[in-house]
Amino acid sequence: MTRIDLNADMGESYGVWTLGNDLEVLRWVTSANVACGFHAGDPHSLSLTLGAAKSAGVAVGAHPGYPDRVGFGRRFLECSPQEVYADVLYQIGALFGLARAQGIRLTHVKAHDALYNRAALHPETAQAVAQATLDFDSSLPLTVLAGSVGEEVAHKMGLRVRREGFPERAYLKSGQLAPRTLPGSSLHDPQEVAARALSMVLEGRVLALDGGEVELNLDTVCIHGDNRDAPRLAQAVRHALEGAGVRVEVPI
Amino acid sequence: MTRIDLNADMGESYGVWTLGNDLEVLRWVTSANVACGFHAGDPHSLSLTLGAAKSAGVAVGAHPGYPDRVGFGRRFLECSPQEVYADVLYQIGALFGLARAQGIRLTHVKAHDALYNRAALHPETAQAVAQATLDFDSSLPLTVLAGSVGEEVAHKMGLRVRREGFPERAYLKSGQLAPRTLPGSSLHDPQEVAARALSMVLEGRVLALDGGEVELNLDTVCIHGDNRDAPRLAQAVRHALEGAGVRVEVPI
Amino acid sequence: MTRIDLNADMGESYGVWTLGNDLEVLRWVTSANVACGFHAGDPHSLSLTLGAAKSAGVAVGAHPGYPDRVGFGRRFLECSPQEVYADVLYQIGALFGLARAQGIRLTHVKAHDALYNRAALHPETAQAVAQATLDFDSSLPLTVLAGSVGEEVAHKMGLRVRREGFPERAYLKSGQLAPRTLPGSSLHDPQEVAARALSMVLEGRVLALDGGEVELNLDTVCIHGDNRDAPRLAQAVRHALEGAGVRVEVPI
Amino acid sequence: MTRIDLNADMGESYGVWTLGNDLEVLRWVTSANVACGFHAGDPHSLSLTLGAAKSAGVAVGAHPGYPDRVGFGRRFLECSPQEVYADVLYQIGALFGLARAQGIRLTHVKAHDALYNRAALHPETAQAVAQATLDFDSSLPLTVLAGSVGEEVAHKMGLRVRREGFPERAYLKSGQLAPRTLPGSSLHDPQEVAARALSMVLEGRVLALDGGEVELNLDTVCIHGDNRDAPRLAQAVRHALEGAGVRVEVPI
Repeated sequence: MTRIDLNADMGESYGVWTLGNDLEVLRWVTSANVACGFHAGDPHSLSLTLGAAKSAGVAVGAHPGYPDRVGFGRRFLECSPQEVYADVLYQIGALFGLARAQGIRLTHVKAHDALYNRAALHPETAQAVAQATLDFDSSLPLTVLAGSVGEEVAHKMGLRVRREGFPERAYLKSGQLAPRTLPGSSLHDPQEVAARALSMVLEGRVLALDGGEVELNLDTVCIHGDNRDAPRLAQAVRHALEGAGVRVEVPI
Repeated sequence: MTRIDLNADMGESYGVWTLGNDLEVLRWVTSANVACGFHAGDPHSLSLTLGAAKSAGVAVGAHPGYPDRVGFGRRFLECSPQEVYADVLYQIGALFGLARAQGIRLTHVKAHDALYNRAALHPETAQAVAQATLDFDSSLPLTVLAGSVGEEVAHKMGLRVRREGFPERAYLKSGQLAPRTLPGSSLHDPQEVAARALSMVLEGRVLALDGGEVELNLDTVCIHGDNRDAPRLAQAVRHALEGAGVRVEVPI
Repeated sequence: MTRIDLNADMGESYGVWTLGNDLEVLRWVTSANVACGFHAGDPHSLSLTLGAAKSAGVAVGAHPGYPDRVGFGRRFLECSPQEVYADVLYQIGALFGLARAQGIRLTHVKAHDALYNRAALHPETAQAVAQATLDFDSSLPLTVLAGSVGEEVAHKMGLRVRREGFPERAYLKSGQLAPRTLPGSSLHDPQEVAARALSMVLEGRVLALDGGEVELNLDTVCIHGDNRDAPRLAQAVRHALEGAGVRVEVPI
Repeated sequence: MTRIDLNADMGESYGVWTLGNDLEVLRWVTSANVACGFHAGDPHSLSLTLGAAKSAGVAVGAHPGYPDRVGFGRRFLECSPQEVYADVLYQIGALFGLARAQGIRLTHVKAHDALYNRAALHPETAQAVAQATLDFDSSLPLTVLAGSVGEEVAHKMGLRVRREGFPERAYLKSGQLAPRTLPGSSLHDPQEVAARALSMVLEGRVLALDGGEVELNLDTVCIHGDNRDAPRLAQAVRHALEGAGVRVEVPI
């Protein structure tokens, strides 16, 4: 039986400012990547998010980002590997602290946005993120862009990886995600996103924006939590996958 | 045999900015209270501080503060107990993450400056700090101002406490530390500070700035790490204590 | 003819996070107090807010707050008068820079929330805010809580003041605003808020939450921009005032 | 008679943390580039720096940087031109506010470190910095790396520019500064730095690290304020220039 994890980013509010609809999204996903305070999330709101994930029976991972709150961790920042390593460790630990107080165990680590993209392409950054994860807890899986340099680096370092696909994002035939600045780089129609998820999970491939197909071998698919459509997309993807007989669950 | 812990605050650099002389102070103290990134300390510099403490054989505790970096955590900030609780948990966890990667176990928690002072006086703040410590690890001791409301609150909650005295700070007869704005509130002469430390540790009392004596029952004495005199003061206190037959060591 | 200014706080988004509905509120007010980056507002979003205010023909003032973004400037922070003075100058200047580039002249200064409340009660803080305003531009009016210590201090220093009332907030008979923690401290019904605005502006008085009446002598009334009801409240107040023959306009 | 401006970066302390020796450096330079709070500088310490520059008779310019305090503005951050534009305007305005209160007029703008380097190479960033300067005050000169893309962009936009050289930094034959990671990229010997300054100013050329010479047409030379040697270097450069009959003064 085919199995897949369905994940979303969460905990991306900050102080008085809210973002996303975590409670709705939690109804449909099996894993939550929870912000750790650098790109988003203050300690009190993160505690609430963790509690909500626990109540919903959704697994929780740490979602560390660049220290760029005003840019929401979406802008590349030329950090040294030592800085990335320490920043990621700090953030995993911080979320671990909030989680431990509620009896929640962290199940994975996934870098956020610009740091995720950098780690997908740049071996030294990939290594820094992977080493921080290993040094915190060598049994923690790291979520990586399927087929990326980052997957390869983490794999060689002996890390458990979760290979991730993005049914709501367009791919280039190189296997990279299409930059958000390209027209058509984001998909919003739930049926289309669900169809892409099915293709990714069941056939291991998806159409590329610049022609041809990308082959993907996936452990988890991601629905971004920070847009308005997230609950509908997550619901559509989940229904489509389960309707096709896929078991949607956290990897063991 | 009388035993006492000798502690200092550390890790209070930030980015390009350095503060204190941690390497020198580490030669004389038995415990280090390491900043956690809110009032001071960036992840990379904190990692270096932790490594230095480990090399020096000095025990490491978390030193969480108010989220006020420009004010160095020295200004009272009217946080709710929920905010204090989550801020403290987050910071303990963050330092725990950096420490764990180096195989270092946190040995205690001590609130920083304005948060410490608030927790010494204000039961709800004291409870928030104590609860965060308990919820992170119920075996972690919390360092509190000896004789304060904060000590009483933590004790009632079942927390292990370390009662702390400040030989370099003047006391009021109420048992509180004299505000830094009062003349004579800080002492700089190593011999005088050492003599006060002896009086505190061996006789359980110290002269108050406004007359009379304060009785103190101590587990640890603190030398502030952020001033220029810290190494000399720490050295003088350690020599005086050991010269008087006191065993200077971390409490079991 | 009775004249009154109708103001609202604005520009309180930050990075990806939005707050309030500035475009709607701008339809009804005559002055906007625009955040300056410390409690809210990033430079790019503030530029957009300034442009929108200009298009709407609404006057713009600087709305400096405590340096506490995660607390939205709502938590008292024990700053020295020197710190308040420099923080306020910095923030006025920053908004001035963004405004000048669009040919917008700042028309007033109003401290935000916890700083406003502190300046209403505490003479040294009031003086620091007033001195910063004077030193930036001695012709700039400062918006103050009508009848407060802060009004008196600013008046004595020779500052032009705008005395402000809050029809959507409950008053205590002391003339202070009722703390937000008291039941009934905030009003949400547009008709009730409009009626209170009329009473304040036309009769110079309003009922107090703890009995009796508060006398108010007003130049401007405020509708908070950060809540969902702001556009409806602002509309209701404006219609009521104009329906009663009051001229709603920026003071000369 | 040959004339040249001698400038240094200043105001790079933050809260309790001090950096550089501004008072010493002010004895030797004619212009100070004062941090604006994003990469360094808090409002209160910036006020003190401005006052010291005024007392020393040194001209003051705004020195805006990337919003990356923990990285001291030394790390490239992939901001959009709109973000750079608004960030620079905000920072110029903020320093203008603090300066105006002391009757100090800003004499120029110079981007800091990673933003300076980006603007030297990348036309869109150069344009954003230049436009912000123009829109704040079209008479304000912008300090640019002599011979860079940034100089060309600013010149075409009609901005007054100050072409800058770095006697303490090694150049590549391309005319760019050698990256700090290259051995020999920074010079520390006062006599050598002074000799390079003379060569730059009097002969319009300097030896490149990778062979050959770079031609430079300069209005100002910079001594970095954030290193320990700054006062000695600035003194040596000033004495050498004046000894060779160069007039060291702010451009008109």
